Amino acid sequence: MLQNDLILRAAKGETVERVPVWMMRQAGRVLEEYKAVRSKFSGFKEFVKNPEASAEVTIQPVDIFGVDAAIIFSDILVVPEAMGIDYIMEEAKGPVFPTPIKSENDIDNTNLDVLNDLRYVTDAITITKRALAGRVPLIGFAGAPWTIFSYVTEGSGSKTFSKAKSWLYKNPTASHRLLQRITDATITYLHAQVDAGADLLQVFDSWAGVLSPQQYTEFAIPYMNQISDSLSKRVPVTLFAKGAHFSLPELNNTSCNVIGLDWNINAKEARLMAPNKTLQGNFDPCALYAPLTDIEKMVKTMVSEFGTQKYIANLGHGLYPDIEREKAKAFVDAIKDFGKA
Amino acid sequence: MLQNDLILRAAKGETVERVPVWMMRQAGRVLEEYKAVRSKFSGFKEFVKNPEASAEVTIQPVDIFGVDAAIIFSDILVVPEAMGIDYIMEEAKGPVFPTPIKSENDIDNTNLDVLNDLRYVTDAITITKRALAGRVPLIGFAGAPWTIFSYVTEGSGSKTFSKAKSWLYKNPTASHRLLQRITDATITYLHAQVDAGADLLQVFDSWAGVLSPQQYTEFAIPYMNQISDSLSKRVPVTLFAKGAHFSLPELNNTSCNVIGLDWNINAKEARLMAPNKTLQGNFDPCALYAPLTDIEKMVKTMVSEFGTQKYIANLGHGLYPDIEREKAKAFVDAIKDFGKA
Repeated sequence: MLQNDLILRAAKGETVERVPVWMMRQAGRVLEEYKAVRSKFSGFKEFVKNPEASAEVTIQPVDIFGVDAAIIFSDILVVPEAMGIDYIMEEAKGPVFPTPIKSENDIDNTNLDVLNDLRYVTDAITITKRALAGRVPLIGFAGAPWTIFSYVTEGSGSKTFSKAKSWLYKNPTASHRLLQRITDATITYLHAQVDAGADLLQVFDSWAGVLSPQQYTEFAIPYMNQISDSLSKRVPVTLFAKGAHFSLPELNNTSCNVIGLDWNINAKEARLMAPNKTLQGNFDPCALYAPLTDIEKMVKTMVSEFGTQKYIANLGHGLYPDIEREKAKAFVDAIKDFGKA
Repeated sequence: MLQNDLILRAAKGETVERVPVWMMRQAGRVLEEYKAVRSKFSGFKEFVKNPEASAEVTIQPVDIFGVDAAIIFSDILVVPEAMGIDYIMEEAKGPVFPTPIKSENDIDNTNLDVLNDLRYVTDAITITKRALAGRVPLIGFAGAPWTIFSYVTEGSGSKTFSKAKSWLYKNPTASHRLLQRITDATITYLHAQVDAGADLLQVFDSWAGVLSPQQYTEFAIPYMNQISDSLSKRVPVTLFAKGAHFSLPELNNTSCNVIGLDWNINAKEARLMAPNKTLQGNFDPCALYAPLTDIEKMVKTMVSEFGTQKYIANLGHGLYPDIEREKAKAFVDAIKDFGKA
C-alpha cells in the first residue's frame, strides 16, 4: 500500500490536498550521493545495467528532496539497444550509434523480442519497489517512437535531425514500418515495467519539436496513441512532447492521463489547448540559477496559474548538472508550501 | 527604380499579383558558384569582410533561383565583434567567443561606436545595389538583441544556453544594460544599412525559443520594439523569433511589418495569433529532401493555407547545406506557380 499516492490521484484527475511534485532528472549529477555510486562504474552503460545501483540512485532524491515520486534510473536508448541498434555514450557528445539504420533491410533486422535484454531494468524496478516500501509511487518510462527513430536514423544527437527527418520525407512507408517496430517493442517493455511494479509511466518525446505539426500528426501521434491505449488501462500514462506546443490538442484527444509541458508555454494557454488532462510541468530548469527568494516567487506564480488540481509540478525539462542541490530542494519545498489545495 | 517590388508591397500589406518568395540562407553552400567564391578565402571572416565577394554571393541566388529579393551576405555576429567581443568561426562547432562577457565591467567596456568597423557591410550593400540595378529589393539584417546577448554571454552555441539564461535570472539589471547596448549598436548599424541602400530589414532572433514566455516579454520584446520603432519609419521591418510561437501576439503589437515563422506552427494558428501583420515562412527546410512532386504538393498546400496576400513565402529556417539546388529551385518555382493572386 502506498503511503503517498498524491501523484496517482492527480494523474487520474481525482481531488488532491496538495500539488504533487517531482523533477525530471532528479536522480543525477546535482547529487554527490549519485556521483559516489556513478564513480564505481567505468562507463555509463555498465552503471545503467546494474539493477542495485539503479535502484540506489532512484531512491536518493526521495530521501534528499522529498519528492512525491521516484522515477527509475535508466535511459531511453536501452530500447533501441535491445532491438539490436547499439549505442556508445560519449561523455562530451552524448549518444552515438556506430551503425545507424540506413536501409529498409536494417529496419527488418531489428529485434522485437527485447525483454530478455532489458531484464536489468525490470530487476531494478523490483528492487526499488521493495526498498521504497510504499513511501511514494515509482514512475517507469520509455522514449517515444519518434524520438527513438530520430536517434537510430540520425546516428547521434543533432540540432536539426535532418537525416532522421529526411527519412520521413523520402520514405514515409519504411519510416512507418520502423516506427511501428519501435512502438511494439516499447509497448512490450512498458508492460514489463508495470508487471515489475511501475505505478505510472511517462513517454518522453524529446525531439518532438523538430517536426512540423503535419509530420507530428502523421509520424508521432498514432504511435503515442497505441502506447497510451495499451498501457493506460493498467496505470496512468504521461505523454511529454518537448517543443511541440502544437500537439497539445491532439494529445488531449489521446487516452493518456497526463500531458507534460516544457517551459515554452503558459499555464493558461496549455489549459485551453488540453482541457481534459492533468498537466505536468513546467518550471524553467534555468530558473533554478535564480536566488532562493526568486525561486519561491516564481513557484508561487506557477502554482497559482496552473491551480492545485489536475496538476503535477515539475520542471519543463531535466535538472541541469550544475544546479545547486539547495535550489532543487527549494523548488520542491516551495511547491509543498504553495501547492496546498 | 525597382523592377520587382512584390516583397515590399507584400510587407506593407498592399495588394500583390503573386506571392513573393526568397529563402533564408539562399546564398550559400548549396551553390557551386558560392563555393567557388568562398574557396578564395582561407577563413570565413576574411570572406565576410570582403565587400566584393559578399556582393557576388548575394546576387547569385537572384540569378540562379529567381528569388524576389536578395539578402546581403553577412553574419549576425559582426555586431558583437564590432562592439569589441571577438569571435572565431570554427567549421565544425560554429562560432566561439574566446572572451565572453563575464562581468558588469565587461558590459561597460563594450563599444557602441560600431560603424567604422562595419564599413565592409555597408560597402557590400552599396556594391550589391549597384549591381542589382533595381532587379529586386535588397534585404539587410541583424541578430536580435537576445540572440546576440546569448552568444556573447554563453561564449558559443549551446543546446540550453544555460549560461546566457542564468544571467537573466541572476542579474536582470545588468542583463538589461547589455541588451540595451546591443540594441543601440544594432539600431545604428541597421540605419547605416538603410543609408547604404537596404530596402527591407530582418531581425533574426534565432534563440528566442530557449526563453520562457515571461522572459521573452521582459528581455526580448522591449528591444525588438525599439529596433522596429526606429527603423520601420524608413523601410519595412521583419521580426523572426525562431521557436517562440508564444511571442506572436506580442510581435503582432509591435510596429514591425512582417513576422517570420518557423515550421512549427500552422498558417491558421499564426494568422489568428498575428492578424495585423504580413507573415513570412514557413516551409520545413527538411521538406526539400522530398521528391520534386511532393515538394510541389506541399508548397501548394502551404500557399493555400496562408493565402496570396499579406504573405511572403520562405523556408521556416535556413537552407541546409546538403539540399540539392534543383530542390531549392523547385520550391521557388512552385511558389511562382501556385502563388498567383
